[in-house]
Formats: sequence, structure tokens, C-alpha cells
Amino acid sequence: MKGRNLWLIPLALLVGAQLALAQSPPQTDPLPSWNEGPAKQAIVEFVHATTDKASQKYVPPEERIATFDQDGTLWVSHPMYTQVMFCLDRVPAVVKAKPELAKVEPFKTVLSGNREAMAKLSMQDLEKILAATLTGMSVDEFSAEAKKWIETARDPRWKRSYTELTYQPMLEVLQYLRAKGFKTYIVTGGGQDFVRAYSERVYGIPPEQVVGTAGGTKYGYDKSGKPFLTKEPKLLLNDDHAGKPEGIHLMIGRRPHAAFGNSTGDRQMLEYTGAGDGARLMMLVLHDDAKREYAYGPAQGLPDTKVGTFTQALYDESKKDGWLVISMKQDWKKIFTWE
Amino acid sequence: MKGRNLWLIPLALLVGAQLALAQSPPQTDPLPSWNEGPAKQAIVEFVHATTDKASQKYVPPEERIATFDQDGTLWVSHPMYTQVMFCLDRVPAVVKAKPELAKVEPFKTVLSGNREAMAKLSMQDLEKILAATLTGMSVDEFSAEAKKWIETARDPRWKRSYTELTYQPMLEVLQYLRAKGFKTYIVTGGGQDFVRAYSERVYGIPPEQVVGTAGGTKYGYDKSGKPFLTKEPKLLLNDDHAGKPEGIHLMIGRRPHAAFGNSTGDRQMLEYTGAGDGARLMMLVLHDDAKREYAYGPAQGLPDTKVGTFTQALYDESKKDGWLVISMKQDWKKIFTWE
Repeated sequence: MKGRNLWLIPLALLVGAQLALAQSPPQTDPLPSWNEGPAKQAIVEFVHATTDKASQKYVPPEERIATFDQDGTLWVSHPMYTQVMFCLDRVPAVVKAKPELAKVEPFKTVLSGNREAMAKLSMQDLEKILAATLTGMSVDEFSAEAKKWIETARDPRWKRSYTELTYQPMLEVLQYLRAKGFKTYIVTGGGQDFVRAYSERVYGIPPEQVVGTAGGTKYGYDKSGKPFLTKEPKLLLNDDHAGKPEGIHLMIGRRPHAAFGNSTGDRQMLEYTGAGDGARLMMLVLHDDAKREYAYGPAQGLPDTKVGTFTQALYDESKKDGWLVISMKQDWKKIFTWE
Repeated sequence: MKGRNLWLIPLALLVGAQLALAQSPPQTDPLPSWNEGPAKQAIVEFVHATTDKASQKYVPPEERIATFDQDGTLWVSHPMYTQVMFCLDRVPAVVKAKPELAKVEPFKTVLSGNREAMAKLSMQDLEKILAATLTGMSVDEFSAEAKKWIETARDPRWKRSYTELTYQPMLEVLQYLRAKGFKTYIVTGGGQDFVRAYSERVYGIPPEQVVGTAGGTKYGYDKSGKPFLTKEPKLLLNDDHAGKPEGIHLMIGRRPHAAFGNSTGDRQMLEYTGAGDGARLMMLVLHDDAKREYAYGPAQGLPDTKVGTFTQALYDESKKDGWLVISMKQDWKKIFTWE
């Protein structure tokens, strides 16, 4: 071997190392569970437009806010919202602490275990159950209860934990946006403290990026003088419909550049997002896949529902305002990670 | 030159480059405006303990939350809170829109320009002025008004913009903590929307990390159908005293590992922070430097005040609970950036 050849080896290593550093990683599809189509294309184009410095629609990193409804948008919400299942499961413990409730409706019906009667409970009844099961304990006790429940409870259809019923395509959107410098928020009608108990583990969304229906807390001290917060029945934020943009202003203080929902409760969040300047992405998940998940609207002739209603008026507004409707059936290659 | 020598040159370059990558940057003092002493030492030791993976008190990055009161902790709050100055300056515009207020107290006194009479306004009077000047407009209009005012208003003593009256040593603490992976929050009794108008530019703290006294907003549409939020007089969060931990739970959902304040309004925030496990840092700024800034307590025999009161009871609690008291006079080499 000649000296010249020996000299070339490490130089080639150096140049090679520099090239490796300069080259971008191989292009991989950030949304592999999405079929090619207008929905996937809209997401990818939005990300390019907002993160390419040469783009006229470039958005500085600090303003990259994306908000996601949870129930029906990030995970299954049929036949009933997961949090309601949690509250129903908590009723026996609440009645044990307050035995006088055993003879009072709607607690009596829930204790009976009669599913048919429980399905007929009114929204007022459910609110009584929510107030009784979501308040009156310390925030730490509540968080521990919620964590324990979410780890052990199973849904009635797939017999899986509720956190396995998250939508793989939406998890990919969350990851894709975060990889491109977006802060992802959950903006849910569900209880803020309930969702915070698992959001970081399940969605990679930390507690401080969960905006939800929130009650007040009360600061006090235990017998040893240690301070703690008690969950009060006082409602501070009803984070649904108009409450979503109001909650976004309260908790984030910026208008989102992207918003994802699935029901009439998300309409105002999408309107508020769309009213901003520059690039904005508004999307609605339409549950049109009874085989792989559920089908409900009543938009587009789908069966009507009280849980996550997607009206024809919302469908028409989305067409008029340039919002994209995601068809679970057509746009999603797979629904769940474990499929 | 022999081939062997030629071979060695690029190898040395390679090794050198690797060493350069592995070496840490030269040690610079992260807190140059702090005198050596227990306060500075406590901050540096806390950062080392929480960010060194080998430390028993290591805190994972996602849990590194530090909260800072604003008035009197991050910037000057004497002789009167900056936000109150803003509200007083807004009274003529409010009266122009509602002329009937001109003959009603406390607006009549404010319009008179009589500083002596204004100094005697009660807390109830001030609350009326705050309600009238901080609500009733859209959140965007308010933000624009607050930004305009903060750029042009000057404080009575130094004739500087209020944002120049931030404390250089505290700006260094904010930067130091952020460089070590902490999320820094303002937790202020001041109005959330007011502070958000300048917090990013002045403190590097984005709107979503400002927790403050907050009113409700109301979602609606203008004549063209464009949605907007109106600031309502309904109080959602009074972010002072017990309201501080309550606000921290509402907006952050995690217990801070470090909390900085300067008055009795910060007591509960520091107690709540200190009640957590592991490394916790609680600090209070004592204004004991009448020459360079102001001196008030009444702790330690300093003059009494209604603006940012630091009682002897708070001083005693800080000694008992291991909170560090920062003496502006002794601990801070300089107070302001421009000194």
C-alpha cells in the first residue's frame, strides 16, 4: 500500500462524516396509516406551508399551536364517553361514603346495574353523577383514582383498555406536527383533570397542554398543616361549543393554526381557528365506518346520535368554509395501532 | 514528508473534532448580577440537583416547572402596580365612550388628575376602575391597547418604560432555568391578558405560560359573521393568595419545583411548591434597597405598604420552612439592565 492511499482513507472518512451530518434523513411517510387523498394531502401541504421559511405562509415556531378535540377525534367515544363510564363505575364508592344517596335517583338506577335503565338517564341525571363523582376529593386523590381506573377498565366492544382505542392516524398527525415544531393541545368537553391523568403517556401531551371542562379547586391544609387542593363543584369552564374558543383564550392565549374535531361541539373552535390570518387547517373526523368503528351523523344520512353529533348543518358549513372532512372509511388505512 | 505523517494529520483532525464535540463549553457564571451568598448558592445548587442525572434529586425535564410572581418579583411595583397605571390612563377613553361616568366616582376623581385624591382611592374604587377599563372590548382590541400603552408609558421615577424596570438578576434566573430545561411561568395577581401583551418580548415567557387573574370571555360574531371574543366582567380566577395554587392547578396541572415571590400574596404558592417531594426551591425578594429601588415590608422593620406587603409573619414562615429570602441590597450586584 502506498502512503497516498493511506492518506486518503481518513480523509474519505472525514468527508463522509460531514456528508452524513449535512444530509437529511431518508424521506419517510409521516402519515403511513392515511390513504392518499385530499385529507392527507391537506395536512402535508399545511405543514410544508407553515414550516418552510421560504413559504409566504410561514409561521414562526412560537405561534405553531394545534388543538385537538379528544372524544371521537383522538379516541373512540361510542357507545358512551369514556369519562361517563368512569363516573358510573365510581358511583358505588361515592354511595359508600354517602349512604343516603343509595335511595336517590339517579344513583339508585346506576346501583341497580340495569343497563337499559341507565341508557335512559337524562343529561341532567348524568350531570348529577358527574358532579358527585368528579368533585369533593383532593386533586391528588382524584388523579390516582383516574389513573387506576384507566389502567384496569375495558371497553364493552373490543374488551381493550380505553387508551388502546386511540386512532393510529391521529397519533401520527400529533407526532408529525410536534416533529415540525407545533405545540399540540387537547381541547375537550371532557374533564380537564380526568384527561390529564393519562394524556402524557397516551398522546405525548403534557398536563399543561390539556384544556378541558374545569371546575374550581379550593386551597386548604390537612391536620399536619400540609396544603392540598380540593375539587369543588363550581364550574369554571364548560369547554364545549363556544366554550372551546373561550377555553383556548383562557389557557393558551393564542389562536390555533390547526384545529381538529368531529362534532357540533367543535364548530366554534374551527370557526375561531379559521378566522385568523395566513395558513389555517380545520378538519373534522366523520364516523362513517360501522364495520371497523362506528357510523353516526346524522350528516350524510348516517344514523343520528346524542354522543358526538355531526349534523348536516356542520357538514355544510365545513364545505362552505374550506374545512376538510376526514372519512374514517376512506381516509384511514387502519383505525387502531393493534389492528 | 513521510506517508505515515500525512496519514496522521487527518486522524488528528478527526480526534480533535470529536474532542471538541465532547467537551462542554467554557464555564461562565449564569448569574453574573448576583453577589456570592446563600441566595445565589441555593439557585445554583437547586439547578445542579435537579438536572444532574446522577443526582438523587434529579427531576425529569417534563416536570421542571418554575413559577414567578411578576409585580415586585420580576419588575418594579412601587409606588403603584403598573397595570393600575394602565387602567387609570384608560379612564378618559372609557368615559368618552360612556359620558355618564364623568360625574360618577371614582371616575370623577381620576379625570380630575388630582394625584393626592387618586392616591386615596379605596380598593373598591380601584376594582370599579379595573372592571370598567379591562372588560367590554374584544380580546384583540385589548391586546393592541395594552401593547400600545406599554410601549409609550413612562414610570414617574426613572422616566423609563415599565418594561425597562425588570430586574436583571431575575431575568438571569429565568434564562438559567430555561437553559436547564425548566418551563418558566408567570403566576401573577395582575391581569392575564395584560401581562400576555408583553411577556414574550420582555421575559421570553409565551402567553400560554402566563397564569394571571382572568375574567371570562364571550364568543360572538361581528356583522360580517367573523367570530371574536369579548372580555366579560365575570371573574374566573383571582390569581392571588390561595388563588395562586388554584390557578397553577387550573392552568398547568403540575406542582412547581421552584417558586419565586415577594409578598404575602405569594405565600400559598410557595407553601404548595414546598409540599411536593424531592428538590424544591422557594424564594422571596425582600425590597430593602430604598436607594437603588424601594424599601418596604413591614418585615424586618422596613416601612409598611399596601402594595406588595411582606409581613413579619411571612418572613418568619420563610425561616421556618426553609424558604430563601433574597435581599435586593445584599444579593443583587445590579438591579436594572441599564444601570
